[in-house]
Amino acid sequence: MKKLLQDYKAGKRSLNEVLEAMQKLPYHDLGFAKIDTHRTMRKGFPETIFCQGKTTQQILAIMSSLSQHHQNILATKANQTMYNAVKKIYPDARYNPQAKTITIKREPVKNKKGTILIVTAGTSDIPVAEEAVETAEIMGNKVEKIYDVGVAGVHRILDVQEKLRKASVVIVVAGMEGALASIVGGLTDKPVIAVPTSIGYGASFKGVAPLLTMLNCCAEGVVVVNIDNGFGAGYFASLINR
Amino acid sequence: MKKLLQDYKAGKRSLNEVLEAMQKLPYHDLGFAKIDTHRTMRKGFPETIFCQGKTTQQILAIMSSLSQHHQNILATKANQTMYNAVKKIYPDARYNPQAKTITIKREPVKNKKGTILIVTAGTSDIPVAEEAVETAEIMGNKVEKIYDVGVAGVHRILDVQEKLRKASVVIVVAGMEGALASIVGGLTDKPVIAVPTSIGYGASFKGVAPLLTMLNCCAEGVVVVNIDNGFGAGYFASLINR
Amino acid sequence: MKKLLQDYKAGKRSLNEVLEAMQKLPYHDLGFAKIDTHRTMRKGFPETIFCQGKTTQQILAIMSSLSQHHQNILATKANQTMYNAVKKIYPDARYNPQAKTITIKREPVKNKKGTILIVTAGTSDIPVAEEAVETAEIMGNKVEKIYDVGVAGVHRILDVQEKLRKASVVIVVAGMEGALASIVGGLTDKPVIAVPTSIGYGASFKGVAPLLTMLNCCAEGVVVVNIDNGFGAGYFASLINR
Amino acid sequence: MKKLLQDYKAGKRSLNEVLEAMQKLPYHDLGFAKIDTHRTMRKGFPETIFCQGKTTQQILAIMSSLSQHHQNILATKANQTMYNAVKKIYPDARYNPQAKTITIKREPVKNKKGTILIVTAGTSDIPVAEEAVETAEIMGNKVEKIYDVGVAGVHRILDVQEKLRKASVVIVVAGMEGALASIVGGLTDKPVIAVPTSIGYGASFKGVAPLLTMLNCCAEGVVVVNIDNGFGAGYFASLINR
Amino acid sequence: MKKLLQDYKAGKRSLNEVLEAMQKLPYHDLGFAKIDTHRTMRKGFPETIFCQGKTTQQILAIMSSLSQHHQNILATKANQTMYNAVKKIYPDARYNPQAKTITIKREPVKNKKGTILIVTAGTSDIPVAEEAVETAEIMGNKVEKIYDVGVAGVHRILDVQEKLRKASVVIVVAGMEGALASIVGGLTDKPVIAVPTSIGYGASFKGVAPLLTMLNCCAEGVVVVNIDNGFGAGYFASLINR
Amino acid sequence: MKKLLQDYKAGKRSLNEVLEAMQKLPYHDLGFAKIDTHRTMRKGFPETIFCQGKTTQQILAIMSSLSQHHQNILATKANQTMYNAVKKIYPDARYNPQAKTITIKREPVKNKKGTILIVTAGTSDIPVAEEAVETAEIMGNKVEKIYDVGVAGVHRILDVQEKLRKASVVIVVAGMEGALASIVGGLTDKPVIAVPTSIGYGASFKGVAPLLTMLNCCAEGVVVVNIDNGFGAGYFASLINR
Amino acid sequence: MKKLLQDYKAGKRSLNEVLEAMQKLPYHDLGFAKIDTHRTMRKGFPETIFCQGKTTQQILAIMSSLSQHHQNILATKANQTMYNAVKKIYPDARYNPQAKTITIKREPVKNKKGTILIVTAGTSDIPVAEEAVETAEIMGNKVEKIYDVGVAGVHRILDVQEKLRKASVVIVVAGMEGALASIVGGLTDKPVIAVPTSIGYGASFKGVAPLLTMLNCCAEGVVVVNIDNGFGAGYFASLINR
Amino acid sequence: MKKLLQDYKAGKRSLNEVLEAMQKLPYHDLGFAKIDTHRTMRKGFPETIFCQGKTTQQILAIMSSLSQHHQNILATKANQTMYNAVKKIYPDARYNPQAKTITIKREPVKNKKGTILIVTAGTSDIPVAEEAVETAEIMGNKVEKIYDVGVAGVHRILDVQEKLRKASVVIVVAGMEGALASIVGGLTDKPVIAVPTSIGYGASFKGVAPLLTMLNCCAEGVVVVNIDNGFGAGYFASLINR
Repeated sequence: MKKLLQDYKAGKRSLNEVLEAMQKLPYHDLGFAKIDTHRTMRKGFPETIFCQGKTTQQILAIMSSLSQHHQNILATKANQTMYNAVKKIYPDARYNPQAKTITIKREPVKNKKGTILIVTAGTSDIPVAEEAVETAEIMGNKVEKIYDVGVAGVHRILDVQEKLRKASVVIVVAGMEGALASIVGGLTDKPVIAVPTSIGYGASFKGVAPLLTMLNCCAEGVVVVNIDNGFGAGYFASLINR
Repeated sequence: MKKLLQDYKAGKRSLNEVLEAMQKLPYHDLGFAKIDTHRTMRKGFPETIFCQGKTTQQILAIMSSLSQHHQNILATKANQTMYNAVKKIYPDARYNPQAKTITIKREPVKNKKGTILIVTAGTSDIPVAEEAVETAEIMGNKVEKIYDVGVAGVHRILDVQEKLRKASVVIVVAGMEGALASIVGGLTDKPVIAVPTSIGYGASFKGVAPLLTMLNCCAEGVVVVNIDNGFGAGYFASLINR
Repeated sequence: MKKLLQDYKAGKRSLNEVLEAMQKLPYHDLGFAKIDTHRTMRKGFPETIFCQGKTTQQILAIMSSLSQHHQNILATKANQTMYNAVKKIYPDARYNPQAKTITIKREPVKNKKGTILIVTAGTSDIPVAEEAVETAEIMGNKVEKIYDVGVAGVHRILDVQEKLRKASVVIVVAGMEGALASIVGGLTDKPVIAVPTSIGYGASFKGVAPLLTMLNCCAEGVVVVNIDNGFGAGYFASLINR
Repeated sequence: MKKLLQDYKAGKRSLNEVLEAMQKLPYHDLGFAKIDTHRTMRKGFPETIFCQGKTTQQILAIMSSLSQHHQNILATKANQTMYNAVKKIYPDARYNPQAKTITIKREPVKNKKGTILIVTAGTSDIPVAEEAVETAEIMGNKVEKIYDVGVAGVHRILDVQEKLRKASVVIVVAGMEGALASIVGGLTDKPVIAVPTSIGYGASFKGVAPLLTMLNCCAEGVVVVNIDNGFGAGYFASLINR
Repeated sequence: MKKLLQDYKAGKRSLNEVLEAMQKLPYHDLGFAKIDTHRTMRKGFPETIFCQGKTTQQILAIMSSLSQHHQNILATKANQTMYNAVKKIYPDARYNPQAKTITIKREPVKNKKGTILIVTAGTSDIPVAEEAVETAEIMGNKVEKIYDVGVAGVHRILDVQEKLRKASVVIVVAGMEGALASIVGGLTDKPVIAVPTSIGYGASFKGVAPLLTMLNCCAEGVVVVNIDNGFGAGYFASLINR
Repeated sequence: MKKLLQDYKAGKRSLNEVLEAMQKLPYHDLGFAKIDTHRTMRKGFPETIFCQGKTTQQILAIMSSLSQHHQNILATKANQTMYNAVKKIYPDARYNPQAKTITIKREPVKNKKGTILIVTAGTSDIPVAEEAVETAEIMGNKVEKIYDVGVAGVHRILDVQEKLRKASVVIVVAGMEGALASIVGGLTDKPVIAVPTSIGYGASFKGVAPLLTMLNCCAEGVVVVNIDNGFGAGYFASLINR
Repeated sequence: MKKLLQDYKAGKRSLNEVLEAMQKLPYHDLGFAKIDTHRTMRKGFPETIFCQGKTTQQILAIMSSLSQHHQNILATKANQTMYNAVKKIYPDARYNPQAKTITIKREPVKNKKGTILIVTAGTSDIPVAEEAVETAEIMGNKVEKIYDVGVAGVHRILDVQEKLRKASVVIVVAGMEGALASIVGGLTDKPVIAVPTSIGYGASFKGVAPLLTMLNCCAEGVVVVNIDNGFGAGYFASLINR
Repeated sequence: MKKLLQDYKAGKRSLNEVLEAMQKLPYHDLGFAKIDTHRTMRKGFPETIFCQGKTTQQILAIMSSLSQHHQNILATKANQTMYNAVKKIYPDARYNPQAKTITIKREPVKNKKGTILIVTAGTSDIPVAEEAVETAEIMGNKVEKIYDVGVAGVHRILDVQEKLRKASVVIVVAGMEGALASIVGGLTDKPVIAVPTSIGYGASFKGVAPLLTMLNCCAEGVVVVNIDNGFGAGYFASLINR
């Protein structure tokens, strides 16, 4: 800004040029989408493509626009059909069918020091956990996974207490009653990000039960993201692990 | 019934007498309430007076009717004013201000063999737990209480694992996120009765959060009663502990 | 533990051996699942496989791990495809298509003395009841079923009053308004486990209506499990019927 | 209308007079309320004053307007203060403190033939039942009351089966789980009007539980009115009992 | 009963015979269903078959049992497949694909005097209305239908005011916001039965919006049945129209 | 009306003719639908066909009836199959597959002066926005669209501030958390119509989250329509833009 | 901006001055509140003080800040105590106890041409309507009120049809079932703003019932604001009535 | 542990001593509460006293126990009466009446490097923000507050963009629609903790509206805590700011 104004005073830019430059969009306009090309600067990571509700054509167009500015791309909630279309154009795109993520990784990402530990209560919670894994990894984090350590057999989580304390952040992924977040919160002094999942039936109400459990968590140091939002947890964990 | 019919055939009772007897009410009709005098027989315990929404006059009248047939009486959700009125007529009535119960105990109740263990997640859950205690005790059970062993400090509940296994039934009373029920369910092979409480704020929605948690409990052997229903838990525990 | 420490003092085990043994997992780690091999000891029954949200591969792997330690296995919420895969490896596996359970029963289970009585309000509630039946039977209980005795024709349930009183536990399975639990609770002095089902339409809200009915049950001695949770009811009934 | 048009053609009324007459309001306009003076004709009963949310001044003004056209007046959800103000002006006004109704009855109402039977599940449901009683009585019906016959002691309602069948309409008033409506619906072939009450605690959610129960009633011949709407039930019963 | 006792005294029946007779079931037990053969007596109409959640085999078995005692049969929520199976055995069965009802009508039903008027707010509400029509007709009522008279064009309902007043009962079927019930309630002095439908989208929440509207109806004389419960409305209307 | 009465007095019409004319329906009755032919007069626009829940036959019949009176027709929530049937009869019908609208435009519509600006938060909200576009355009408005300017990159919406201020009405279409409506409301002094969409997952509860956001909007000048109701927003905007 | 830049180039302002000026806040910072002094320009009306949750001290401070820039002030949800404190400092402040608004009006506001018509369904809805009245009036609109024209007596609203059509905007305020909005929407071609109120009991759920009714309104041209938000409706109506 | 075992082998401790030591509770048992004396070690901060639902006696007892091990104490949700009692015993206790916190600070807490920035949408959200402030400060953080920067005047938050980027963590406290969290999330690359508040009315449902908004936040890097849980946000922010 300062530079712009100085140029203007120095006569290097006309008044109109300055006004226009100030209005110039820090994004690429595709009509149906505005690609945010400044986000890497502003947020330290490119815009992720949330594929749900978008057509394959739209996804490809966004990806094409993003790939002009970014080396690494992450697409979430992507189905196999979307991936097949992407794969044709970006042969180095990788699909994680559990996580439903497409990743294109070209630029080496610097390893951050700490480890993000991702634990799930059950086997059925793994897909959501994997979305967190993919997100955290493409953002340059070291990730460790411990799956199926739900509270019905509390010794399983007690056995990994040391890992819970050594991690730099812990992500807890749990459906049904979501009690694992409370236990983990009590066992570690590290920030805990709780992800409720829609796993369960009846009065789990597609994730409402674990969501409420986690929001009312009696242990300190636990925050919550949306139901099934593995991406959000992975992203936030990465912000902390800098 | 058989007796009645034989008497009738033997001419000891007229047809009308038999028909009338068959219709005769096994309860005492106060107009605003029908006292169930056969319940001790049918259910093994007298009708409890649920005081909420009743006038003091109604409570006294019901108590008077009950006291003709029963030695021991339990009134729940009773406030201090109600108790004061009761106390004047039944000087041996006892009030537990936390539990909000009035008890009149005249008949020695036989000690059942097993112990009912009542645990709470927090200090604020004690009033509901005490209602369970009063109920279980007047029904002749040995009760043991362990309060404030919530999952935020999971070692507190782990320290009483042996008690959890030795009890004949366990009642878990918890508000906020109610995760204690899941832990306890995983630590004992005894039936666990979970009581959600309305303790908490915000997204606990007056007990909805722990209610859902407990209904979705991933540990086997856990059942649920209504929010703040300490009486129901104490009663059910007593049915098991026979 | 005591033994371990004495061995250690006696020099039979090194310090490291003791520390390691104390950490040794009482479960078999499959990566995506931790099989709880101590559960039979701790809970008196092996871990059940909840099939919903698991892949057939995962189910087979868990079953393979379980079958090393247990003779009898129960899988719930299993579809026909899962069963077909299981059947190939375990020819003695049996499928109950209504209950959606797979059972492998090799070890004779001792008959417990009492009878678990399972009643349904309607014909449509039978699948959930059958899940309870399968669970109770593989845990060694004698089960009696009475189906379609809903309160719209109250004489149907009155006709089985004696059975309600003679059973050791009663399971009531009901959808729509779920009123059967209240009636049964008033007719028997035995513990009643109420299972709301998602049967109904409109304002039944997939089981919320009977769930609320049962939680607010005015009869004492009634507890509740999750909507459609026949397994939980059968399991809890079995804990009582020991 | 026909008369008006004929008068107009005959020159007895001008065009403007006719247009104006057609617009003339069949109600008395108080500014804050429009008193519907044609309702007795249209609905067979005067407008009832729903006092909740109205000031005493407004109630008095409406009453004054109504009393010019009607002999009998009913005010519901009225508190003692409102009654005291009314009493000063209408000394023959009568207050039912349980029902919270004010009634002014000057005109003898013809007794309709059938009986409206009003039953409650518990003692605490009586206030709502009394509102139905007052409504049905001022509309000229014979009313019979049977209170506290909830399903926990099902023999209490079975004992009055004959009355249920002989009544011309049955009103069932029940809180907590509201199961009484289903039983009564199965025991009588007369129309049953179910009134959920806000009596209960925890998961009764101020009447939502019995409301859902009654809407999902498996017995035919049962309809539902709003929570605590004794007036609505009494009014509808009276429409049927003509 | 009296007869039974007199026979017994007269020696025509043994004590055991009497006891047994008193226990004899007034229904036919199919195992998965108990057919209520006394219902025509008790309720004035045979048990209807609610097909949802039942297998075709179960429906056929129930129908076969019912057809031994009843001439006229009604099955609701039946799909085309169910009908095809029924049709093979009962060639006189008729299917209303909108109403999703199967009817078998063999016995002439006496025409009751009054007319049941069935109105819908929109075209999309017709299927629910048709279920009410089929129910009312097989119970011997004269039915008149007026469809698509929703309040957005209020003159459409005003035009049929006279019919609303001449009918003996009015059934209002409405989805979306369900306001038609309030208007109709204000225009007629006849009992109005309101049926919310699940028609709509977004904040209609599958019928919750019109359900609440109808429960809070400011017009007197309106009662409510479950969402989409055309059968219940038709049945209740028939009870009134006697 | 006045004319009718004068004709009558002048003897040009008989009494009966007048009474009949006054009763004559201002709509065309198709049995299952009453076509409102006076609506153009009354509301300034013909009845739109809401296709959801209607059969193709019903839609064609309504369209046929409408096309006798109107030149321009709009059908919403129409699927491709419906369009194909319509296309055969009305070759000039146009389908917008995103908006799911069918439009027949024969009469030139006068351009109103102001512009309706339609903005979406994301790409996935476009279908609902397009329904608003089609509605506004067939009602003769100039429409401008700005898509994908959600608040996560707030500079995107700031960049169009001038357009927000120059428009005559603004429609904001947003799912997920719906925060865009608040921002836009703060940036313009023009009326803002907020349309929540069902886009999102987990705790968006199919549009409930943005609906609540928009209802609680802290910026003045924002009103709300039903979830996914692009038509309602376009229609209302058109009413303002006159 | 342009001016600022030209001044800068001309040397009238230093670089720092320009940067600072661009940062200068268009609001007055009170610490606990930022008074938006540019809003009159941006929105055409000063910031309203929403008093709920603010201390009297805070309200006075905000008012003091506002009164430096504005002649006319509106405070909503203000109680009598707040008003008394305000009155001491601003003797010309006026309190509407029903609306709970404080208004200070010093500057004559130009009368806009059209009339805002405000109708209520009942007498109890008047307080919310009055908040709309006060808001619309201080913003310079002519307001007409018609109270208590609910749909139970539909002729009351039909009688004012002409007023509904002549108004420039209509505000409908209704609690209970809120059906009035649908009727009004069908009777006028003017924009209708619907305000649900929390008047009612039981299943009105403090305004949820009329809110849903209004959101699902089958009449076109109806939008909705928050429950009890008379201010929002008055403000929006004023935006349209320019 | 290792030490304990070595001591034991060395004979310094008996077998019983070791077993006992291993069982010795790392908390102080008050009967109604178990004070967690190891928490500082385990979690880096002492147990906070959540005062809601506790008696003043219980609070004093817990405080007395805590003060034996800790220098600094925090009590939340404390009312003035509780503080008065505490003040008598701990004259250095300080009360923040807005935050409703009692703090006792004896030990100097090391200043962590980063700043925790706490912003509120409105003036009414300040109490919840102050609870976060007190929590963060007693845990040794530098805190900066910016209050009343809600999105209705988006320039207020844009003006503090630089602070949002320079902070180490940002806490956003917002009621009503809670949109501020999304804006802030888009303006900073720092972790954002969103706290919904119960400020608002009508469809804010005591904080549900902002809670859902924040959970569905379209900006990355935003997590959520319970409604009104300022403490939780302050605590979590402190965990990050190490």
